[in-house]
Amino acid sequence: MPSYTAPVKDMQFILHNVLNVTAQDVPGYAELEADFTSAILEEAGKLTSEVLAPLNATGDAEGCTLENGVVRTPAGFKAAFDQVRDGGWPGLDLPEQYGGQGMPYVMGSAVGEFFSAANQAFTMYHGLTHGAASAILAHGTEQQKDTYLPKMVSCEWTGTMNLTEPHCGTDLGMMRSKAVPQEDGSYKISGQKIFISAGEHDMADNIIHLVLAKIPGGPEGIKGVSLFIVPKFLVKDDGSLGERNGVSCGKIEEKMGIHGNSTCVMNYDEATGYLLGQEHKGMRAMFTMMNEARIGVGMQGLAQAEVAYQNALDYAKERLQGRDVTGVKNPDGPADPLIVHPDIRRSLMDQKSFAEGARAFMLWGASLVDRAHRMEDKDADGLVSLMTPVIKGFLTDQGFDMTVLAQQVYGGHGYIEESGVSQFVRDARIAMIYEGANGVQALDLVGRKLATDGGKHVMAFFDLVKSFIKDNEGNEALKADFLDPLKAASKDLQAAGMFFMQNGMKNPNAALAGSYDFMHLFGHVCLGLMWAQMGKAALTALEAGADDETFYRTKLTTGRYYMQRRLPATALHLARINSGADTVMELEAANF
Amino acid sequence: MPSYTAPVKDMQFILHNVLNVTAQDVPGYAELEADFTSAILEEAGKLTSEVLAPLNATGDAEGCTLENGVVRTPAGFKAAFDQVRDGGWPGLDLPEQYGGQGMPYVMGSAVGEFFSAANQAFTMYHGLTHGAASAILAHGTEQQKDTYLPKMVSCEWTGTMNLTEPHCGTDLGMMRSKAVPQEDGSYKISGQKIFISAGEHDMADNIIHLVLAKIPGGPEGIKGVSLFIVPKFLVKDDGSLGERNGVSCGKIEEKMGIHGNSTCVMNYDEATGYLLGQEHKGMRAMFTMMNEARIGVGMQGLAQAEVAYQNALDYAKERLQGRDVTGVKNPDGPADPLIVHPDIRRSLMDQKSFAEGARAFMLWGASLVDRAHRMEDKDADGLVSLMTPVIKGFLTDQGFDMTVLAQQVYGGHGYIEESGVSQFVRDARIAMIYEGANGVQALDLVGRKLATDGGKHVMAFFDLVKSFIKDNEGNEALKADFLDPLKAASKDLQAAGMFFMQNGMKNPNAALAGSYDFMHLFGHVCLGLMWAQMGKAALTALEAGADDETFYRTKLTTGRYYMQRRLPATALHLARINSGADTVMELEAANF
Repeated sequence: MPSYTAPVKDMQFILHNVLNVTAQDVPGYAELEADFTSAILEEAGKLTSEVLAPLNATGDAEGCTLENGVVRTPAGFKAAFDQVRDGGWPGLDLPEQYGGQGMPYVMGSAVGEFFSAANQAFTMYHGLTHGAASAILAHGTEQQKDTYLPKMVSCEWTGTMNLTEPHCGTDLGMMRSKAVPQEDGSYKISGQKIFISAGEHDMADNIIHLVLAKIPGGPEGIKGVSLFIVPKFLVKDDGSLGERNGVSCGKIEEKMGIHGNSTCVMNYDEATGYLLGQEHKGMRAMFTMMNEARIGVGMQGLAQAEVAYQNALDYAKERLQGRDVTGVKNPDGPADPLIVHPDIRRSLMDQKSFAEGARAFMLWGASLVDRAHRMEDKDADGLVSLMTPVIKGFLTDQGFDMTVLAQQVYGGHGYIEESGVSQFVRDARIAMIYEGANGVQALDLVGRKLATDGGKHVMAFFDLVKSFIKDNEGNEALKADFLDPLKAASKDLQAAGMFFMQNGMKNPNAALAGSYDFMHLFGHVCLGLMWAQMGKAALTALEAGADDETFYRTKLTTGRYYMQRRLPATALHLARINSGADTVMELEAANF
Repeated sequence: MPSYTAPVKDMQFILHNVLNVTAQDVPGYAELEADFTSAILEEAGKLTSEVLAPLNATGDAEGCTLENGVVRTPAGFKAAFDQVRDGGWPGLDLPEQYGGQGMPYVMGSAVGEFFSAANQAFTMYHGLTHGAASAILAHGTEQQKDTYLPKMVSCEWTGTMNLTEPHCGTDLGMMRSKAVPQEDGSYKISGQKIFISAGEHDMADNIIHLVLAKIPGGPEGIKGVSLFIVPKFLVKDDGSLGERNGVSCGKIEEKMGIHGNSTCVMNYDEATGYLLGQEHKGMRAMFTMMNEARIGVGMQGLAQAEVAYQNALDYAKERLQGRDVTGVKNPDGPADPLIVHPDIRRSLMDQKSFAEGARAFMLWGASLVDRAHRMEDKDADGLVSLMTPVIKGFLTDQGFDMTVLAQQVYGGHGYIEESGVSQFVRDARIAMIYEGANGVQALDLVGRKLATDGGKHVMAFFDLVKSFIKDNEGNEALKADFLDPLKAASKDLQAAGMFFMQNGMKNPNAALAGSYDFMHLFGHVCLGLMWAQMGKAALTALEAGADDETFYRTKLTTGRYYMQRRLPATALHLARINSGADTVMELEAANF
């Protein structure tokens, strides 16, 4: 059975040595002293490793069941959810006004990684509540906020997001769900939504569904979509629960993974709904929290990679098989541990260098969100909007690949469900799909974000890379190992951007055929930048005579590994981008 | 529910336009006229698409059950197995002397791909029988052959291979199973074997287990391992079935995929066994059929990629979502089909160019096996031994990746088991593990095969590439699109080999740290060579005024795609190899 240990020290390294949070001028960051963050992370680490991780495999095996309209979550989930609720974890970064703790998003993300790694299916119940609460916070009336937020922040009530319908996922303009206005200002919502995570379950008194639907007579397509609050139980004026609303779970989907989360078909039959935000501006309301939601999914990719890595590492240290070709390492045993073998190390280093780089990338993104929200910093907002599809697409693709590598370390045992590692692969797979499939992320990046505000934000990113290299060019310990590879990778990214500029105007397909590669190219450069920054932070700590020398030396080795072995992927992505659209678009559909 | 159509035309193209089988001097090849192979392939295509494919998803959902020692296969398997048996398919390439049809292995492989693609879990039952029969054929006494082969060739009896034990998979020298010699010349076999595919089931009257075990007093480690025939029911002198042997299924493993195949824990309790081949030479006996078995697994990678691609392609043509950015393509519908989008095409072309290149590679390998076996051609034997880990490792890794790409085309629907595409991913995953995990393939390639016979076979491969380029250098239609990229990729492969030569002697880890990348680098060069040959064959057919011009033009486009978009991966692999072992080996195990 797999286990999980929250990487608290690593998280602290990023928060304090790399991001240097207390020195940042973001409101709320000054309080993030190392002792304080350490206490929170330790506590979250304890809860996730001791309570949530043990329910991961059992939740996978048992799954959710639907009987007479009632969804039962796996054994132990309800008690664990109570513990999570009692600890105030769901509201960690939500406003104090509604019962939250008002901490920055960067802390919510740090803790969120632990939760996702320990039990992704479980964590989605309060994760989606967080998303729904954020939407109400951003777009709700005062009355709506007062009615729903206190209960949602505490997770007494949970939330859902209802977008997809059987015939439309990405292309929501085709939506058929209807919202008919009533005399009292409410709407009657009818239609079917699918793939609704946590759509129905037994862990909360009420479920607040946020539902996209069309008001008849509104504009065609995506411009006629509005967002509604549809509670499972209507809420009376005094805040108590009233009658059951016309919404029900028609089916629980059988999925490849995240079995512990109930993925429901939700049927709305003249359910009472309340407009959230403006009429026909439903997509805009969804998009305001899109960056956070997508960074959160990117984090899931990293989280599954981390927990899979931890277990593969344990296995590689314990499993005795074969002998070190350069000389026996375990003479008293029948064989050496797997970890002596170079190819096993290659796999473990791929995983380790990804997870640590990704963690820095995710927290950097989260800190930009804080900057954007807490300081109304438009540049930070632009930059994180640019980064969001990269964080989501790159971290989930790579995170999944890393779980596959971890599974491979187990040999045949990895294919047997008993080992638990197959679950990491199956759970990680969904993150590449939901919250906008990764192909759509690439399209968003290349088709929209690159050109936003005249390309200002991508230029800001390049400036950031350039300044870092320039500021540190005298640092010999950093130069050959970190700065030079980063410079080369960054050049590849610029060349790709140049190719799009020169060819994309004439032929959009020339850019779009390279969009997926561009997303990965960009991701590698970001992780290269993160590793260069972490390398610098590690060197600084060593120069300052830090206690745990091994920790920082290990960081340097891991970073060098990334720069030497992973970052050169940028050249391959550039080559593919430069090949343009000809062979991609040439075939008639019938000739495939 | 997914469907499958056997790619008969494509297989014919490789057999006749590329490999030109009837012109080869291999015994049995002259009979492989296009009409003859077409009849066989059409018939196999019908059986696999109409009988086996429909049982794939149901077999996955139902799985195998063990009750009171009896294993029940999924509904429909037994009847389908009878049909396969009646058609004589299991013995297609086994000797006529024992009831087979004596066709070359290349035909067995061509047909085998169809079977695996349609239903991998099902096909393993006769696939393993084929492997066990081949071992008896190569190492059995005349009496053993006469006793077992007729029934195994017909699949009245099936076969298994018993290698792995709980504590040893790759490192079989640690094996604990014992074989105690008896006065009558037989042995009593005791021990536990795990991961035994088709170990017990209800589709055959008898199961012939081939079991590795140690005879007490023999040499230590792998040199003391012998191979035994252990029938489920002992066979009397008249060929009828006698008493039940001391072997039983203790458990069916719950796996990530191939649920339709019963993966058993097999317990041997003083079971009667008969030595196959020589005492203590069990590994040698296993290895004689290793090339075939591993090429067969490589073929499974390709097969799952093919069937996943076919279904993703159908979905991409049917699912309406979004509009072509260059102009509406389906004005009468609510949206355009997915296949108009460049990134969907990028994914489909990745899959298509892989499957077709892999098919040529697999059949080329099979033709080398025929040359080695039917002509005792030592050069062909050496070359295919070199290629075997590449075919196995590269095709299964890439094949798995392609199923993941296919799943992604489905968006959220791909994650729901109902769509059937998740099964392709889950089934494909095992091929990277069994018959030697892919890390072990890479080790075999770099640690053993490269240097075999003084490096003669890898030089022969390079000569082959060089001659092809030289022979066609006047062909302008081929040069820029195919020959130049092939030359560049081949240079990368040579440079990698050079790095190993220069560094591997001093430090074996410097080579082994790059072994996995070398396997993939080699695989890409092989597929590049295949595409260059297919490109030439397509051009030749077009020049000759072939009927189906579109077919050959599509081949050229697909080949160009591979050369432009996939083959440049060689440079990345070389960069990783050239980084050596330093960062791979630097960390102490405790510091990971």
